[in-house]
Amino acid sequence: MAHIPRVDVNQQTTADMKAARSQTSISVQTVRNYLYGGQNVWDMRERLENILVQEPLFDKQHRDFLGRTDQYIRAAAIINRLDELRRVHSWSEEEYSTASSLLSEVMSITLHDAAFQPVFLGQGSPALMEKYWDLVYEKGIQGCYLQTELGHGTNVARLETTSTYIPETQEFEINSPSLTSTKWWIGALGKSATHGVVQAKLILPNGKDMGPHLFFVQLRSLEDHRPLQGITVGDIGPKASGGMAAQDQGFARFDHVRIPRTNMFSKFAEVTTEGSYIQPPHAKLSYGGMMYIRATMIPSSGWTIAKAATIAIRYTTVRRQGEPDAKGLERQVLTYPSTYYRLLPILSRAFVFIELGRYTIKALTQMQQRLANRDTSLLPEMHALLCGLKVFVTTHGIVDIETARRSMGGHGFSAFAGLGRLYIDYLPSATFEGDNFVLDGQVVRAATKLCKAVLSSTSSVAELPLPSAYLRLLSATREAPPQVTASTWHDVHSIVLLLEWRAALMVKNFTQTPADVDASVNQRLAKAVTEAFVAAQVGEMISNLATLPSEDAKVVGYLYRLYLLTSAESALVDLLSVGLIRHTGAGDPTQDLRLAIKALCVEILPNVIGLTDAFGFSDWSLDSALGVFDGRVYEALWKRAQMEPMNKDEVTPAYAPYIRPMLRRGQAAAQQKMKLKSRL
Amino acid sequence: MAHIPRVDVNQQTTADMKAARSQTSISVQTVRNYLYGGQNVWDMRERLENILVQEPLFDKQHRDFLGRTDQYIRAAAIINRLDELRRVHSWSEEEYSTASSLLSEVMSITLHDAAFQPVFLGQGSPALMEKYWDLVYEKGIQGCYLQTELGHGTNVARLETTSTYIPETQEFEINSPSLTSTKWWIGALGKSATHGVVQAKLILPNGKDMGPHLFFVQLRSLEDHRPLQGITVGDIGPKASGGMAAQDQGFARFDHVRIPRTNMFSKFAEVTTEGSYIQPPHAKLSYGGMMYIRATMIPSSGWTIAKAATIAIRYTTVRRQGEPDAKGLERQVLTYPSTYYRLLPILSRAFVFIELGRYTIKALTQMQQRLANRDTSLLPEMHALLCGLKVFVTTHGIVDIETARRSMGGHGFSAFAGLGRLYIDYLPSATFEGDNFVLDGQVVRAATKLCKAVLSSTSSVAELPLPSAYLRLLSATREAPPQVTASTWHDVHSIVLLLEWRAALMVKNFTQTPADVDASVNQRLAKAVTEAFVAAQVGEMISNLATLPSEDAKVVGYLYRLYLLTSAESALVDLLSVGLIRHTGAGDPTQDLRLAIKALCVEILPNVIGLTDAFGFSDWSLDSALGVFDGRVYEALWKRAQMEPMNKDEVTPAYAPYIRPMLRRGQAAAQQKMKLKSRL
Repeated sequence: MAHIPRVDVNQQTTADMKAARSQTSISVQTVRNYLYGGQNVWDMRERLENILVQEPLFDKQHRDFLGRTDQYIRAAAIINRLDELRRVHSWSEEEYSTASSLLSEVMSITLHDAAFQPVFLGQGSPALMEKYWDLVYEKGIQGCYLQTELGHGTNVARLETTSTYIPETQEFEINSPSLTSTKWWIGALGKSATHGVVQAKLILPNGKDMGPHLFFVQLRSLEDHRPLQGITVGDIGPKASGGMAAQDQGFARFDHVRIPRTNMFSKFAEVTTEGSYIQPPHAKLSYGGMMYIRATMIPSSGWTIAKAATIAIRYTTVRRQGEPDAKGLERQVLTYPSTYYRLLPILSRAFVFIELGRYTIKALTQMQQRLANRDTSLLPEMHALLCGLKVFVTTHGIVDIETARRSMGGHGFSAFAGLGRLYIDYLPSATFEGDNFVLDGQVVRAATKLCKAVLSSTSSVAELPLPSAYLRLLSATREAPPQVTASTWHDVHSIVLLLEWRAALMVKNFTQTPADVDASVNQRLAKAVTEAFVAAQVGEMISNLATLPSEDAKVVGYLYRLYLLTSAESALVDLLSVGLIRHTGAGDPTQDLRLAIKALCVEILPNVIGLTDAFGFSDWSLDSALGVFDGRVYEALWKRAQMEPMNKDEVTPAYAPYIRPMLRRGQAAAQQKMKLKSRL
Repeated sequence: MAHIPRVDVNQQTTADMKAARSQTSISVQTVRNYLYGGQNVWDMRERLENILVQEPLFDKQHRDFLGRTDQYIRAAAIINRLDELRRVHSWSEEEYSTASSLLSEVMSITLHDAAFQPVFLGQGSPALMEKYWDLVYEKGIQGCYLQTELGHGTNVARLETTSTYIPETQEFEINSPSLTSTKWWIGALGKSATHGVVQAKLILPNGKDMGPHLFFVQLRSLEDHRPLQGITVGDIGPKASGGMAAQDQGFARFDHVRIPRTNMFSKFAEVTTEGSYIQPPHAKLSYGGMMYIRATMIPSSGWTIAKAATIAIRYTTVRRQGEPDAKGLERQVLTYPSTYYRLLPILSRAFVFIELGRYTIKALTQMQQRLANRDTSLLPEMHALLCGLKVFVTTHGIVDIETARRSMGGHGFSAFAGLGRLYIDYLPSATFEGDNFVLDGQVVRAATKLCKAVLSSTSSVAELPLPSAYLRLLSATREAPPQVTASTWHDVHSIVLLLEWRAALMVKNFTQTPADVDASVNQRLAKAVTEAFVAAQVGEMISNLATLPSEDAKVVGYLYRLYLLTSAESALVDLLSVGLIRHTGAGDPTQDLRLAIKALCVEILPNVIGLTDAFGFSDWSLDSALGVFDGRVYEALWKRAQMEPMNKDEVTPAYAPYIRPMLRRGQAAAQQKMKLKSRL
């Protein structure tokens, strides 16, 4: 073996990170402002983070060592301090919510801010607002949102809790008639909330069941925080793999609890003093809140994926493995095709979802303005779109965090890598706000309906709402599908068109299938429909890059194109099945696409540290030993391990009662055997 | 709305489980004995479990509430008690290891049993065995296996720890020359082990580096458990998402620690008293142990998947959601195509992997008998096969547990569902014993080599080792690929042949590709090669079912066929890309396969509770509120939640210091606003 110079592996990490950073050709600041939607947004964020990092309470380095109860108590302390800071600095709503999200902590107050308060704003009657809004806004009470029950979740229509109107006293009586009607999984209910919005079947004095409505119910005393009479409440216990440990998801049972008639959220539907029901103008008028939450899940998945990408890309930049070169240097793990092929698409999805979030929230705001005027025309399409996007971004978010974690090899499984926590706290998003498998069905239902209208020409393609623009391809005046060649994968318009054609053909085939359908058809159709929409949006994003300086536009454009190519790659079975790509006998027809992906990754690689720096995450915010800005990952891991509470005792307390007895027995038995042998 | 009878959702669970069980047409006992490899194996297992369940220490219901340190201490107590029981009942090795695995606990002693002890047996010199074997076997010392370092994992050749031979004193000097040479991730090292097998570069007196070898090093005093002089040792801290919390993975640094020359594991290679090196007969002779561990990962993935399948199938049998029928009953979640399409393939993989494990361990044992005679001819092929199978079963295992968890909707995210723990403890298997992405490369290397030999006719297809039998299809006398029609999917031979053709064509294309390859090619090829082998094995399994009673053979046969169909489905991109399936213009060519999957699922459904019962898991063993044998899932969840430690206090300790101050500030602020308003 030739002489190989010795390398200080630890020192090399700094050199590698510096070298990677110095290769950056983009303006990190410009791309950062693009991601944040303006320098002013970034400035606010930075100003707030500078305040937060100074708080010892907000230090994250020790939280991995806490048991669940201590994590809950720590979160309560953080919530209280955050509220103090909001008052000290007179934060606006936007500043407060930015600060709150910057903390990246699981906090019970999130349910107050994101689920409880919006119900007041959206559905509170003037009388209820008059009486409670100030308390809600100032957090003089803490709220939660009680929907899910032990026996029913997504299927809201079958909830069992009742709210029966008693005209004699002008009250509602909230009741849990069975074990399975127990409210369950309610964030902040377990130990924190004083009040709740309760979803319950409205029962009129004539016995008629009007289905689920919302009621405002006090749960705990404002004097001493004890549960009120008739209410049994508690925490539902730990979540899978320590997920959301600091959150007190709770249960509640109501034993004929009375509330005033005015505690019904009755902006749209109400019960008169005599007990008559006044109909809402549109059954889905109250969907607005849920739709808004689903819309915010798009950018938040983007920022979550961004964290995972930053950590994994930084670590695999300084981690070296393999045969050493002449300088004694092994290969940077990120430079292996099997690594960058996993990580760069993740980076591209972070960019896409952040931008997609902005597009979608804008569209939703327009719809909500119409909704405020009781115009529900945009609602069904927007609802279906958000179902599809919610499934799409959460499915990717979960997989991407885990893919990033696994790309880091063994050290990725350390809590100090930071991705275990990110993953497990993000994981329930696949189920909450509508189970992904149920939502897929809603996407398909809407797509089929519109498709039938197009096919039967009862709906003009010119009138197609934006999310269903792909259905234009089923009309006579359609654009032909692109002939797929190697150059297809270099043309944005062709890739978008291909993904739109795929959706159109699949939905058409499904709509025209007379009899049997297979068991995963909803999942495949919903994915195709959503990906067609997102691809078209990414096409827009690429056009809009013209406003950026050319080098930045070029590199971010690479990322967007990489998104489109990997989207097409994940659609290969469909593209081949519907005949948009065909095996012609001349080799593998998918190979051009795969090589285009690899080539694009190679173009992006030199800027990859710059692109992740553009997310603007501080070491405090990432809280990852493997994602440190300066690349000194081994020192960071070492330092963190020294904090492990088990290392305080040189000899573990398990030694005397458990380890020593086992060893002593074993030693005695071995001695016995020795004796026997020596006697032989 | 027509009148719908009210159903007691909780009571209905018992009725549903009884009804499902009464539909069983197989003999649960016969299938169980088939899975266990004989009535006698099952009897032993049952006898042992009856002992274990009586131990209060082995109760699992409270472990989710423990912090990490307490989990470690609990595990130490369990290890000690298990060792006592082994002596009390005079368990054989097999009984002890069965009891140990029945516990399903993460325990530091596993490393002693599965990694430390085998090194002694496989590579200890007679002198070392004479001196230490009894202590090792009787657990008078507790061992661990120190390979991975902070700076290097899978790449053993680049480990930095040195063991320098000092002829003057006939000692080795173990040294950690850098921060990154710190041993890291070593199970049982953190707080438990007294001794370790240390992998270190052997340096001869002439300065020559002979690469990694194994050395036996005492770490802690047998008097008081303190680390010995020159050794810095501790726990590396918590793992991602609370994974393997009870395990004390540790770090260690050696500061010129001396051990006697005879402490080298020198059965194959040794250093003479003067410091000369005696070569091993085959560089990979020491691979045996690692190969055995990889082989045992096959059935253990099967049993792990079996647990996930049992829990999810039981829960989705009693969970009902959807529109109520005339009797007021909603639909059982398992009967939705999107649910059984997810769960039944998981069930089929559990059966396949359990049986595949038996096949593989048998083949490995044959190889090891040859190895004992220094015949290494079967080694390279067996090594490549085990790399591929290890990747294959762990990749599926991880995905399958999570798919099962997610099929249970919201309640699946409760720790009480039991799948969070199963998942996170199983997750590192993707990385340990060789990172899956690295192992893929080894599979491809071996396949390419053999393929070139076949293509150049330097190797006769008659001589192909079993795992590479698919390459026979590249010879002139090959069997033609099947013409795919709807009936293909009902013919086992055709499906196996199709998967073998897919592997053969992909490997051939790759071998003949002159220039550029794409970035995921290793992953796709390794998958294709391994799936071809497994499919052929499943073909065998189906033939061997003839020994079972006909009804049992039929139903288990359905499962094996479902395995083959879903394996083909997951291979669709490849099958379409290499032209084994073609788009002919007559609709979607993949639809027949998908409908065949659905039809087969429908055949299996009536036996699904019987098939999971055949795994023989007790409620104690599953430790899942959603997987209880009697189906009373809601009562189980309720009971478990009452145990949550946070529920002991009616008012949380966080109230006085943190929640009350926030509420009081908010109430004061709201009052202030009210006052201002009333003045206006």
